[in-house]
Formats: sequence, structure tokens, C-alpha cells
Amino acid sequence: MSEPFIVIIAGGKGERFWPQSRAACPKHLLPVVGDKPLLVQTLDRVKPLAPAKNIFVITSAVQAKAVRAVCKGIPAANVVVEPVGRDTAAAVGLAAALVGARDPKGVFAVLPADHVIHDAKAYQTDLKAAFAAAAADDVMVTIGITPTEPATGFGYIQKGDAWKTFTIDRRRRAVSRVKRFVEKPKQEVAGQYLASGDYLWNAGMFVWSVPVVNAAFAAHAPELDAGLAKIRAALAPARKAPLDATLKRVYPKLPRISVDYALLEKSTNVVVLPSSFDWDDVGAWPAVPKHFTPDAAGNVTRGLAVVEQGSNNLVFADEKSKHLVAVLGADDLIVVHTPDATLVVPKAKAQEIKALLKRVEALRGGAKWL
Amino acid sequence: MSEPFIVIIAGGKGERFWPQSRAACPKHLLPVVGDKPLLVQTLDRVKPLAPAKNIFVITSAVQAKAVRAVCKGIPAANVVVEPVGRDTAAAVGLAAALVGARDPKGVFAVLPADHVIHDAKAYQTDLKAAFAAAAADDVMVTIGITPTEPATGFGYIQKGDAWKTFTIDRRRRAVSRVKRFVEKPKQEVAGQYLASGDYLWNAGMFVWSVPVVNAAFAAHAPELDAGLAKIRAALAPARKAPLDATLKRVYPKLPRISVDYALLEKSTNVVVLPSSFDWDDVGAWPAVPKHFTPDAAGNVTRGLAVVEQGSNNLVFADEKSKHLVAVLGADDLIVVHTPDATLVVPKAKAQEIKALLKRVEALRGGAKWL
Repeated sequence: MSEPFIVIIAGGKGERFWPQSRAACPKHLLPVVGDKPLLVQTLDRVKPLAPAKNIFVITSAVQAKAVRAVCKGIPAANVVVEPVGRDTAAAVGLAAALVGARDPKGVFAVLPADHVIHDAKAYQTDLKAAFAAAAADDVMVTIGITPTEPATGFGYIQKGDAWKTFTIDRRRRAVSRVKRFVEKPKQEVAGQYLASGDYLWNAGMFVWSVPVVNAAFAAHAPELDAGLAKIRAALAPARKAPLDATLKRVYPKLPRISVDYALLEKSTNVVVLPSSFDWDDVGAWPAVPKHFTPDAAGNVTRGLAVVEQGSNNLVFADEKSKHLVAVLGADDLIVVHTPDATLVVPKAKAQEIKALLKRVEALRGGAKWL
Repeated sequence: MSEPFIVIIAGGKGERFWPQSRAACPKHLLPVVGDKPLLVQTLDRVKPLAPAKNIFVITSAVQAKAVRAVCKGIPAANVVVEPVGRDTAAAVGLAAALVGARDPKGVFAVLPADHVIHDAKAYQTDLKAAFAAAAADDVMVTIGITPTEPATGFGYIQKGDAWKTFTIDRRRRAVSRVKRFVEKPKQEVAGQYLASGDYLWNAGMFVWSVPVVNAAFAAHAPELDAGLAKIRAALAPARKAPLDATLKRVYPKLPRISVDYALLEKSTNVVVLPSSFDWDDVGAWPAVPKHFTPDAAGNVTRGLAVVEQGSNNLVFADEKSKHLVAVLGADDLIVVHTPDATLVVPKAKAQEIKALLKRVEALRGGAKWL
């Protein structure tokens, strides 16, 4: 197998970690957990797997400047900007076009930028096994996250028959065929999935070759494939048409559809590698505290923050502005202070953030806080 | 009666309205309610009662600069600084010395700077009646606040026999003898006081003449009287010793005692005028909302503040800093943002602010937030 490629999808709306996250500075640009932006943590984890020139980051126009500022280890041209968001199928098609222009038979991973994974070594071992699997046969490899709770916020992947095993770094990794993809289940069903041991979380991590992806678009998503063909043409060594102009022309017309719906659920050559690394997508503020060491009362703080007579609060004060955030006699609150906005929300209500941001948007000049 | 004097006591520690209030900027320097600092509102209310040269403000060293900045309508020399706080008896003694130096038989009112009173006309009428009472006989006139609830946070004054009536601005004001002063009662007792109609709140508003006050010090507080004699001497027209130096020498040795304990409870010539004006001492953050018009969900906001899916919150954002404070899904919270500190506390826990401020004081460089 020639050297693999890695394409990191760095998008997101910047809503769920408001006010730290903004449209131009979503979760992957924040050090939600750890000291570096999650995108940088992701880049650090994948760098041992591929040469820097083989690592791409796909992002959005509004985030491009900030993404370029943190992607220092890879060539500037490898940060590619989608002129408009068109869901994950289009992004995967763009990824395949970028990789295909460099290696028509290239194997590449598509990885989210904003997940928290501490065990980089296990992550790298799993990805190496997935690269080996994608090189061994014409399959679409998904990395399924071994579930730790009956979560209702993720799609699940049901394992089918055993397929092949790969030994990487002296560790054996078993890959199974995929029986089916299922959407976010109800609580009771999620409990059954967890108990069965047959189900894995779909975390949007895929490894495959350019020919396999392009064949899937041709077979299952012809309208997308037609648009993507123009992008592939613009990237062809013979043509070298300006990519940006092509994307601006083609992208707005691409169908909005997820790669799960467009390709994976319709394909019969999908296999799954159960993850051996820790994983958290840290979906919103309430998911943050477990990554920190709390005080004796269960409070997690950052920056200049004091909690008196309160328990299980998350209190983040902006670390540069020397502003003190003091919480007195409250429990289970999230308080996040930034230079221009402060959020106060009970943990149990954090999922209502979109309703709040509609109110903020309606304020005079409200866009400046989004 | 010659023109009366008014002495406003502008002290306070700046704790209960933290983080808006600070040691150097306590409640009376804040527009807690209304658009002007409460001290300025008090000055505005008393100005029709006495010439500006007869109005004094007694404050503390740490607050002196800010107090002088807002006391623009009175002579600069009339803002007098206590070098150290020695409770209210010392302040009343200083007030009597200041007035006595100008008019040895002068009648003067001692008034708190930080109460909220909307009906200035009724307040002025009551004070005029109190001045008339203090000029009519050698009595100590207290203005007792007609209670509106069985409050346990105030001392009470029990009315005795009717004494005299005074007709001011065509309104008749009845003054009674005082039967006794009682300290902050328990809830049940407070209910009995309210039901009886015989009890009034002690709001620290007193009107009396210089000779009456000085005689009371001589009779009931000889140690204080000895110290105050040095201050009176320094203020005597013949001497004109520098007042500041005398205060710095004398004040630290004065006994710490309230004027209620030192003089009023021991005197038999105390009378009480029931107030006819609205009154609120606005003791802490939870007392603030009733002075504002809430939104449909009972939220009171100032500055850039948004409440979504929450009720009965008080949310104050600093009005100059264009910082947005957003509360989502929370009820009965107090959220106060200032340029360098933010407080989040459930209304029911606001009385614990002193415990919080001890924690703040213990922070590295914590004094800068106090």
C-alpha cells in the first residue's frame, strides 16, 4: 500500500458551545478539552500516520481564516474551503477528488475534527488496521465506537459476520461485515443494542480507497456524482483549473445529503472495525465536566472562577480577561464567560441553546454574538 | 426656628450588592434603583428642606473620592470623612459637632443615604413635621416606617401615648411618645407587631437639636462624649484647628456603638413620627426586582440581557461594556455582570454573599474585586 491520505472534516455551526463557540469559531477551533483546539489535537493524532502533504482539512468559508491559522503543520493548499455547506456526502466526494488527484488508487480516512480522544496510540493502531482493510479489498471501512452507555444521540452500526483480521503493532484487530445502519434509537432500544454487544456507534470515521468511493457515488448518488465529476476534472493534473472557482460554481447545486444515507446504507461492501480507543464527541456543555478533575463538591472551573456553597457546576471564565466569575449557592449550572458574552444555563436545559440563539439573533446587532 | 440642617450618613461596606458594589463604591453610590446613585437621589430629596450650605455628608475614607464626585450641589467642605468607621453613635456625635459649630441650637436630621423613597413630597412633609417637633421641645424625633410586612430584618419602635400634632403643607402629622425600641424580632413576633398597629420600623432617621444630642451623649455615653468634645473644640470658631487631623487622632479611640444602643434606648424624651412615604432599604439583590417592571415571565433585566425559557430572574449586564448576558432555562436567579466580575446566585441564597466574598478575598490578588 502506498502512503495513505487523511481528510479531516472541520465544520460545525458553533452553536452548542456558545458563547465560546461562534459561527466563525466552532467547537473544533476551541480547546473545549485540553489546551489546544480540538482540530489541532486531531492533527497531532494523525500526523504519525501520513506525511503532512497527504493530510487535508475541509472547512467552511466563515471558518477558513481561523482554520488556516491553526493548521500550521500541513501545506496551505491542503486546507480546502467548501463555499457552502452541502452535508457530508459532498464533503466525502470532495475528499475523494482531492486524494484522487494525487493518487487515483489512494486509500484515505475521513475523520471528524472535533472529537475528544485521549489514547492516541490506540487510535493510530485502529486507523492503521482500517487502512490495511481498505487496501486489502474493495470495502468501505467504518470505525465503530464501542458503546459505553445506551446513548440515544448517535446512529448505531450492527455488526454482521466476521470478515478479516489485521495485526498492527502486534495487536490483532478484527473487522466484521456490517449488517445494517440504524438511526438514533429510543432509550429502550438503545439499551437492547448495548446489551447485545452487536452494535457500535457511528462516529463518522471512514476509511476507503478513491475507486471504491467514486464507484459508490456512481452507483448510488448519480446526481452528486455528476457534480463531483466537474471537481475531479478541475483537479486533474492535465487541466489544473482553479479549484476555488469550480467549487463556487458546482457546490451550491450539489444535493444536501449525508454520506450515511447517500452511500453507506445503500452499499453492500461496508465493514466495521470496533474501536479500541476512548472516544467522546463532547456534544455540548454538559459533556465537558467529565474530562476535568472536579473539586470536592463536583465543581469544574477554568480561569478566574469561584464556587461557594454550590455543587456540580461548570464555571468557565475567559482566561485572558481577568474577569472573576463567582457562583454562590447554585448546583448543576453551566456558567461560561467570554469577553463579549456570558451564558448561564442549568445542565438539564443546555440542549435548548438553539432557542436562546434565536433570541440573541433577534437582538439589535445580534449577529455579532453568533 | 432657624434654617434646619441635614446630615446624610453615607457609609456601608459594599458587600450586599457585590459585584456592583465594592468597598470603595457601596450601595449609596450605585443607581441600584433609578438612574442616579442613591446618595444623589437622597440629596435631591432633601435639597428643598435646607440651604445647600446646611447639608452635610459623612462618609468613609475609602469612599471619600467617589462621594465628593457626586455631591456637586453642596460645599466641598460639607463632605466630612470619618478616618475609621466607629458605628452610628460616633457619626451622630460628629454630625452634632458639625451643626453645632454653625448654630449651637441648630435642629438637624440624620438620614441614611441609601434608601429608596419615591414619594419625595411626603418625605419632605414628614421631615418638616419632624423639624417642627424637634424645635418645639427637647425631644429626639425618630421617623418610624409604617410596616407593610412582618419583616424580621429591622428593629421596631413601639408607639406610646400621643404627644403632639403638627400641620405641614396642610397635612396633619401626629407624633407619639416612644414606649420602647425592640431588636429584630422572630417571624411570629413580627407578625404580632404588624397586626397590633403599634409598631414601626426603625430606619435610622432621626431629627433633633444640637443641645438635645449633646445632652444625651453627656448623660448616657460619657466616654464618647469626652472624645466628641475634642472634635467640638476643633470646630469652634475661636480655634479652627484642622478637623481632619483631630478626627484622625480622636476617632480610632471612640467606642464602637450604635446610636440606638448608646442614646435612644436610654433616653426618655424620644418621640416617633410615623412615615407617610413609601420606603425600601433595598437590603440586597432580591429586593431590587420589585422596583422594576418585569417581562411577562417575571424577569427583570438591565443592559444587554436575554432570558429564554426562564422566569423571575434578575439579570443585570454592565450597560457600558456591550457584553451580553444570556440566561437559558433558569428560574429565580440573580445574575449581575460588571466589567471585572460576574455573580450568579439563586435569589434564596443571596444572603450568603459574605461567605462568597471571603472566598474572593482569599484569591490571589482577591482584594481588587472587593
